[in-house]
Amino acid sequence: MRVSVAQFCPKLLSLDANLARMEAMCSGLSTDLIVFPELATCGYLFSSMEDAYSVAESMPEAKSYQMFSRIAIQQNMSIVYGFAELDKDKVYNSSALINPDGSYHVYRKIHLFDREKLFFSPGDISFAVHEAKDGVKIGMMICFDWQFPEAARSLALAGAQIICHPTNLVLPWCQAAMKVRSLENRVYSITSNRTGKESNNEAEVSFTGCSQILSTIGEELAKLNATEEGIATVEIDANAAQNKRVTERNNAFTDRRPELYRL
Amino acid sequence: MRVSVAQFCPKLLSLDANLARMEAMCSGLSTDLIVFPELATCGYLFSSMEDAYSVAESMPEAKSYQMFSRIAIQQNMSIVYGFAELDKDKVYNSSALINPDGSYHVYRKIHLFDREKLFFSPGDISFAVHEAKDGVKIGMMICFDWQFPEAARSLALAGAQIICHPTNLVLPWCQAAMKVRSLENRVYSITSNRTGKESNNEAEVSFTGCSQILSTIGEELAKLNATEEGIATVEIDANAAQNKRVTERNNAFTDRRPELYRL
Repeated sequence: MRVSVAQFCPKLLSLDANLARMEAMCSGLSTDLIVFPELATCGYLFSSMEDAYSVAESMPEAKSYQMFSRIAIQQNMSIVYGFAELDKDKVYNSSALINPDGSYHVYRKIHLFDREKLFFSPGDISFAVHEAKDGVKIGMMICFDWQFPEAARSLALAGAQIICHPTNLVLPWCQAAMKVRSLENRVYSITSNRTGKESNNEAEVSFTGCSQILSTIGEELAKLNATEEGIATVEIDANAAQNKRVTERNNAFTDRRPELYRL
Repeated sequence: MRVSVAQFCPKLLSLDANLARMEAMCSGLSTDLIVFPELATCGYLFSSMEDAYSVAESMPEAKSYQMFSRIAIQQNMSIVYGFAELDKDKVYNSSALINPDGSYHVYRKIHLFDREKLFFSPGDISFAVHEAKDGVKIGMMICFDWQFPEAARSLALAGAQIICHPTNLVLPWCQAAMKVRSLENRVYSITSNRTGKESNNEAEVSFTGCSQILSTIGEELAKLNATEEGIATVEIDANAAQNKRVTERNNAFTDRRPELYRL
């Protein structure tokens, strides 16, 4: 199958402009799965709850879902993207998986980073695995979830073959840490990061780009640089993620000793 | 406090020679804690259970304990080293922490690697934390335990400030993975690896050296190269490992959501 990672610089609080940009990026694209960044629909650095509400979308009425489901159906591909999700009066930092049959699944970010805690409610649904195009098993985690090995581990134990990882990275460690997340779980990972800077009266953030697609032993199969905007695509064999063999006598999963671990 | 990592090439099945070598390495050393490699007393590539029994030692009668406890008392330091441990008819791939008061604690390797499964019984006691010199809290894990994030996580959750990690590394990933183990847990780690090669009729192994001492965010504080034998020592503030702060609003431990994790 072909998998793609997208990298660009969303405009803060400009839902329509960002959707138009992502639609253009998808135009003519031939892939089975593409991952866009965290909060790709709306930008990152909110200054108030009003900012958050102004761009938050409810599923399935969301403009983003309406657009991406149309593209997913037309181009026969699965799409993962980050958005601000409104549910009753709460806003979540969420990602959606949209499939070629128009169905969708949502993950609400569990480990919120820094000022996100001012505007978003933390996700309260466990890490889950969903089928994407052709039955490939997809797990979603968002940005700072990388810091917690339990996130990728939970997805892999639930059967994920590919971890789709929309991000807005500002710390320097994630891209290297994800190599270990792929390796320790023997799963593919697609980390889609954004580029650019945002600032307001209270903070200034600079995003690190370097989006990447990693093999089941953490090799870089595709990588974008720190500033470029675009899409990288590679061919992978998703079934390789079922193989947890480390050596003739070692298996990354069956060698685990959960009865001896602390949670 | 001062912490040290030792790297050398043990002689296969030569207990006395290896002890003499390590005694010489300790001579004149001024440190508070030193870590030697996995199976430093006896080498790695056993060919039979007879090989294993020929060098396995019972605590506290073990020659290695008798020697290291004398050194620990005389030089007022804690020592961690790897040895083949005999208990009744079983042999474990173990490490011992020997303290300046002569007391000791043993960890039995939980995740055995490859042909180790032919000669060693897997450890069946959970990851535990012990006090070393001056009350510093030490967790021990051995070599391939690095592959399982639950090992370092369990030690850190139990209060480890420093993970002491004797190794005989042959895979290429551990040194980079340990940077993530330190970072995700905000603990120091001391990975002591051996050098050299061993072979028999069934296998040939080449050890990768590159022993390292890492800070609580995974920075290399000390590093030996792939082939040199010797000791590297650095000054650290062990209390830094109590600080799990990531940002003003994030903490690597209190941000965890164990109720949402799979074990």
